[in-house]
Amino acid sequence: MLTLYNDQHALHHGKTEMFRGELVPCFEVPARADYVLQELKRRGLGTIEAPGAFDDAAITRVHAPRYIEFLRLAWAEWVALDPANAQRDALPSYWPIRGFRSDVLPASFAARMGLFSFDAGTPLTAGTWAAARAGAACAFTAARRLLQGERATFALTRPPGHHAGADFFGGYCFLNNAAIAAQTLRDAGVQRVAVLDIDYHHGNGTQAIFYERADVQFTSIHGDPHTEYPYYLGYADERGAGAGLGFNHNLPLARGSDFSAWRAALHTALQGVAAVKPGALVVSLGLDTFVGDPISGFTLQSADYLQVGADLARAGLPTVFVFEGGYAVAEVGVNAVNVLEGFAQAAG
Amino acid sequence: MLTLYNDQHALHHGKTEMFRGELVPCFEVPARADYVLQELKRRGLGTIEAPGAFDDAAITRVHAPRYIEFLRLAWAEWVALDPANAQRDALPSYWPIRGFRSDVLPASFAARMGLFSFDAGTPLTAGTWAAARAGAACAFTAARRLLQGERATFALTRPPGHHAGADFFGGYCFLNNAAIAAQTLRDAGVQRVAVLDIDYHHGNGTQAIFYERADVQFTSIHGDPHTEYPYYLGYADERGAGAGLGFNHNLPLARGSDFSAWRAALHTALQGVAAVKPGALVVSLGLDTFVGDPISGFTLQSADYLQVGADLARAGLPTVFVFEGGYAVAEVGVNAVNVLEGFAQAAG
Repeated sequence: MLTLYNDQHALHHGKTEMFRGELVPCFEVPARADYVLQELKRRGLGTIEAPGAFDDAAITRVHAPRYIEFLRLAWAEWVALDPANAQRDALPSYWPIRGFRSDVLPASFAARMGLFSFDAGTPLTAGTWAAARAGAACAFTAARRLLQGERATFALTRPPGHHAGADFFGGYCFLNNAAIAAQTLRDAGVQRVAVLDIDYHHGNGTQAIFYERADVQFTSIHGDPHTEYPYYLGYADERGAGAGLGFNHNLPLARGSDFSAWRAALHTALQGVAAVKPGALVVSLGLDTFVGDPISGFTLQSADYLQVGADLARAGLPTVFVFEGGYAVAEVGVNAVNVLEGFAQAAG
Repeated sequence: MLTLYNDQHALHHGKTEMFRGELVPCFEVPARADYVLQELKRRGLGTIEAPGAFDDAAITRVHAPRYIEFLRLAWAEWVALDPANAQRDALPSYWPIRGFRSDVLPASFAARMGLFSFDAGTPLTAGTWAAARAGAACAFTAARRLLQGERATFALTRPPGHHAGADFFGGYCFLNNAAIAAQTLRDAGVQRVAVLDIDYHHGNGTQAIFYERADVQFTSIHGDPHTEYPYYLGYADERGAGAGLGFNHNLPLARGSDFSAWRAALHTALQGVAAVKPGALVVSLGLDTFVGDPISGFTLQSADYLQVGADLARAGLPTVFVFEGGYAVAEVGVNAVNVLEGFAQAAG
């Protein structure tokens, strides 16, 4: 197991997010990645390297140019509005829902921030672009090293990515690292890539990016969006569209589901993966399925994650793991590395 | 000038709204209507009556049933989630922008609140439904009394309405009072109704409700949405669609525009109104074009509003005024009543 570690992740450190109508301290904090790194080192699980050379073209393959441009300049624009803004994060306040236009790019920074987002829980900070861009490099390198012969790689980065769409941020995500890894594999000649999202929350961004494509299959096991974030996507009847029809699989589970129910869904998911004979697997590795997660509702125990890793290994595919959610901060290291160790042991 | 006064307006009294990424005290406060009522009484400008008998069917003619149902039960649902919620307003935190679904009604209250809104600045409170419903009755009665022979009526109510669409709230608005008045006139046999929105902010909700209809013309003079709320609608190239093509007129003006520029736009607007030979006029009367408004950017003076009223009277149409925005609270009474007095004097 080769880990690519984004050592710039802590440049993104949001102060507050809107949660149930109030501003509360962010759940998605730098310590999350620190705990994972520490646990990887403690167990000596494979080597840890820095991401390699990176070209923004890999981002452009997945995200819209006007969105990338917005993210790149956002902090400077925010501070230019008012020097005092340097001390506070930027959070959007309005959004173009049905009937509003998304084709016009308003001059107002606040309006563009809303145009390119879907919640009020994802603060944009001084270091967001740098951290997210380095994260894209991390995911890109993880994919490239797989192509160079690694059995499995792990992109250890934050902010996470799977809620970010082609042109919007949200759910603590800005650039879709899993989608960038999958697209990088495709661009290098892997004919079909499977993305398996095991974060507690539906990977709406990844689904949306590949929804009309047959070359990237997307499967997600997650809390039922009827009651769980992101609410407006992740239902079982979303099967893909156009050429992608049949290549999108959502396996929502009721809040409160235990490992037995979850593992049954994993087996269903892996059967679907095997059916399309992919050349590689990208796993969106969220650990918020853990019983102790403060904003989620499954009941997996730490030991269960060893089994998750072993089950994933039995797919027999070159695999890129990409770090996503998991907000029981002190336990996220053990849980993440349990998946990786379970995988490594079963992969032999 | 007959005023219909919603004496339940103060039941809607939000505590905080998201504004530039922070929670700040609401701009849209009960004192706004109180100042207008007080000024009407001080000048003795016509009679003031309570709204008459009202049937929710008038709301259903403009708003979607699932949205009305949500508003009606929202506060009870919010408090049922947590008794402590009785002490705080409900504010949404996520929204279904492009690519998300709006066809599924999630079980989650917070998700439905986001589904039916477009900003984080419009708190839903214990008395919101009662106040908004009484406001709809106020607009309905104002339209009915016009049909019974009044030259002009004034629906003095809040929360305002012109940002509310068929199935969403936002911009401090929940039920679209101007649209309800216009539809009431139509349903009583007025063949064509003109709605003229002179609030500083584009009346996106009213536009959206009538966008594909030729029987209700919509014209709006407002701050350029490139820089002004609601940002995602209100551009000059929005001319209507389908049967409504050519019946929507947006006259955006640059932030900083003075009364001379504004009045020129009003004359253009009134020419367009006259061209379709409407049987009645509904004026969305916002006073946030005032130079002292804290969240707007035109420079009209209090005396200018007498002229505005006189100009509107010269359209020679039975006219329903509906109270909308205006956040220079201490001056909003004088400014609103100046419009009405200028109208009454010119109408003779």
